[in-house]
Amino acid sequence: MKRNVLIIGAGGVAQVVAHKAAQNNDLLGDIHIASRTVAKAEAIIESVHEKGAMKTDGVLRAHALDAMDSAAVAALIRETGSQIVINVGSAFVNMTVLEACIETGAAYIDTAIHEDPAKICETPPWYGNYEWKRRDRCREAGVTAILGAGFDPGVVNAYARLAADEYLDTVESIDIVDINAGSHGKYFATNFDPEINFREFTGTVYSWQNGGWRSNRMFEVGKEWDLPVVGKQKAYMTGHDEVHSLAANYPDADVRFWMGFGDHYINVFTVLKNLGLLSEQPVTTAEGQEVVPLKVVKAVLPDPASLAPNYTGKTCIGDFVKGTRDGQPREVFIYNVADHKEAYEEVGSQGISYTAGVPPVAAAMLIASGEWDVGTMVNVEELPPQPFLGLLNRMGLPSRIKDQDGDRPLEF
Amino acid sequence: MKRNVLIIGAGGVAQVVAHKAAQNNDLLGDIHIASRTVAKAEAIIESVHEKGAMKTDGVLRAHALDAMDSAAVAALIRETGSQIVINVGSAFVNMTVLEACIETGAAYIDTAIHEDPAKICETPPWYGNYEWKRRDRCREAGVTAILGAGFDPGVVNAYARLAADEYLDTVESIDIVDINAGSHGKYFATNFDPEINFREFTGTVYSWQNGGWRSNRMFEVGKEWDLPVVGKQKAYMTGHDEVHSLAANYPDADVRFWMGFGDHYINVFTVLKNLGLLSEQPVTTAEGQEVVPLKVVKAVLPDPASLAPNYTGKTCIGDFVKGTRDGQPREVFIYNVADHKEAYEEVGSQGISYTAGVPPVAAAMLIASGEWDVGTMVNVEELPPQPFLGLLNRMGLPSRIKDQDGDRPLEF
Repeated sequence: MKRNVLIIGAGGVAQVVAHKAAQNNDLLGDIHIASRTVAKAEAIIESVHEKGAMKTDGVLRAHALDAMDSAAVAALIRETGSQIVINVGSAFVNMTVLEACIETGAAYIDTAIHEDPAKICETPPWYGNYEWKRRDRCREAGVTAILGAGFDPGVVNAYARLAADEYLDTVESIDIVDINAGSHGKYFATNFDPEINFREFTGTVYSWQNGGWRSNRMFEVGKEWDLPVVGKQKAYMTGHDEVHSLAANYPDADVRFWMGFGDHYINVFTVLKNLGLLSEQPVTTAEGQEVVPLKVVKAVLPDPASLAPNYTGKTCIGDFVKGTRDGQPREVFIYNVADHKEAYEEVGSQGISYTAGVPPVAAAMLIASGEWDVGTMVNVEELPPQPFLGLLNRMGLPSRIKDQDGDRPLEF
Repeated sequence: MKRNVLIIGAGGVAQVVAHKAAQNNDLLGDIHIASRTVAKAEAIIESVHEKGAMKTDGVLRAHALDAMDSAAVAALIRETGSQIVINVGSAFVNMTVLEACIETGAAYIDTAIHEDPAKICETPPWYGNYEWKRRDRCREAGVTAILGAGFDPGVVNAYARLAADEYLDTVESIDIVDINAGSHGKYFATNFDPEINFREFTGTVYSWQNGGWRSNRMFEVGKEWDLPVVGKQKAYMTGHDEVHSLAANYPDADVRFWMGFGDHYINVFTVLKNLGLLSEQPVTTAEGQEVVPLKVVKAVLPDPASLAPNYTGKTCIGDFVKGTRDGQPREVFIYNVADHKEAYEEVGSQGISYTAGVPPVAAAMLIASGEWDVGTMVNVEELPPQPFLGLLNRMGLPSRIKDQDGDRPLEF
């Protein structure tokens, strides 16, 4: 059963999505890429053709679209006959795109939680403020909506589910650790949209501990983790999408997210934040111009997509899941290691974009095959993880497990 | 001979100028304050009345003025019958204000070199690019124009002249050292307009050494100086207005400017500069808005005037002048120490504004008395320093000298 795909967005992640969808266009169908700036979508198409990524002859087309305009999104879904929408545009457009999917019946996939431009860090569970309010309407319309199907959130949610289903009888804690041990050679850059990147870290750090929400400040709680391949790395407890859904689905477990930061990143972040330059609230210049400081910081930073050609090193992202098995304490670490250079050579994006962009294509393929076409709204841990992780093993994001029995590939 | 004064600008320095002009309005005349935002000029007037600063009854009035509009400035000079213009507005308005003075015959005083908003750090001698091109026209019109009559430039130029005239036979080097050992209690703030402050440090550091211009990068050349009152302080060679005129008037001497910076200032500055946030060149946000990053940084930083109430500590600014006397090597340090809290209590501004704002009023009084009414354009070192420094001794900025004979007040 072929399914036409509409990709929304034309950044580094969309580039990966387009390449991977093209590599699998025998299982998917026509591929359309829509962006406010159509030239960016056209550049992606050119890159797909350059790499000869289309598995079979097929449609690959660029469109100009303001994704904040739900009616325009619905019109484009209809015009292109798209049955699956992979939304990897700004996190600000999630709800307008989802509404268009509910209206047209297309399946919806995204990789990041919805954000309101005027708000930073909403009250938990964040999904409850926007996405989950539309769950009943998805069910009534029979619309499959898979939330947060990138790597983190996404694959790490599947890792948590796999650990709970296959390796543990009871789950006490899920600690997701995201380490980028790569180097882009710039003075400073963020690995994805700086606006979204910084917004993640300027608010309260929410974690789920002892059955309730706990608040910390960013960089307040740090811990060194000893990881395969990338070694010992300092990571800080960070607010992150998946904590908000895993806490709902595994309420008896502590759920925390940890992100690795070097001292240089923390210094730059601290300076910008303390000066007020990461604020999403407009300020007025002496000349009377209204400006959102964060958008100016975004404008001066390197385009994340520009980092790819010189990016070297590896990422390691995974879940430490603790609990019991047969009455004994047990811990597993399920993880992936990705390589920036290999990602660039394959799809022209760096490793962070690669890890975020491959999984939603796998999700689309599982919707196309029917395995994940559940006709309602779900977070990834609500879906069977095996077909997803099995596909990712073959699509460039192999999973491994490390536990008392050693460090080995996860096969499905 | 009374002289009506028009003050252009309504920032922290203008506040000091207004208070000091009011304290001496028996020697000056009507006082007018013009600002783009008339409310800021009105607030200064209110503060002058609160402190009871007017020595005799007289005119003190606020006006709205776009000082970039030379015709409007000339009209206001005529309307107010002003004979002396003290320009302490943005450094971008110097030439439009000077043109209005040449047109109307009013005397002109400023405290900072002219800047073109679109350029950072011009080729030396900077005065040659704008001010000195108008010297002949000032002479022909008989217009007294005193350039750079704040503290630095200004008083330090007079110190250099005094050292050369009174204490040395030959001058080998003039090192101007500016240390602010005060504390404002904020995470980060600049002591005057952040835009002008940062622009000083983002370009090439020009110094005059061995009879030629030498280029360095900011923070490339640092040196610890041992100063009276504030003690040992690290300062960095910095581009600064007075180097450009002193090099012309003392071409046989090395002329360098050194400014004290703490590690925290350097860190914040380095982050902002490396990110491109101190750029005067516009960038375009993802939303298509054209923004000058430096103006946004200015907008998020504390208003320098807001620092005054909690500012404590002292400044020390002076000239180390080396040369020979009677064939023997000799060095003198001529300097002033100012106190932030005392400045605030007297005029409602912090010490940096105080040191910059008192001298141009002294210069105005010397034009009014005729002593400095030279009918042409000059830098401060071209005028007799004694009456200027003598006035400043009595106006709150006493000078001292430290040399082989000890550390003592300079009396005139």
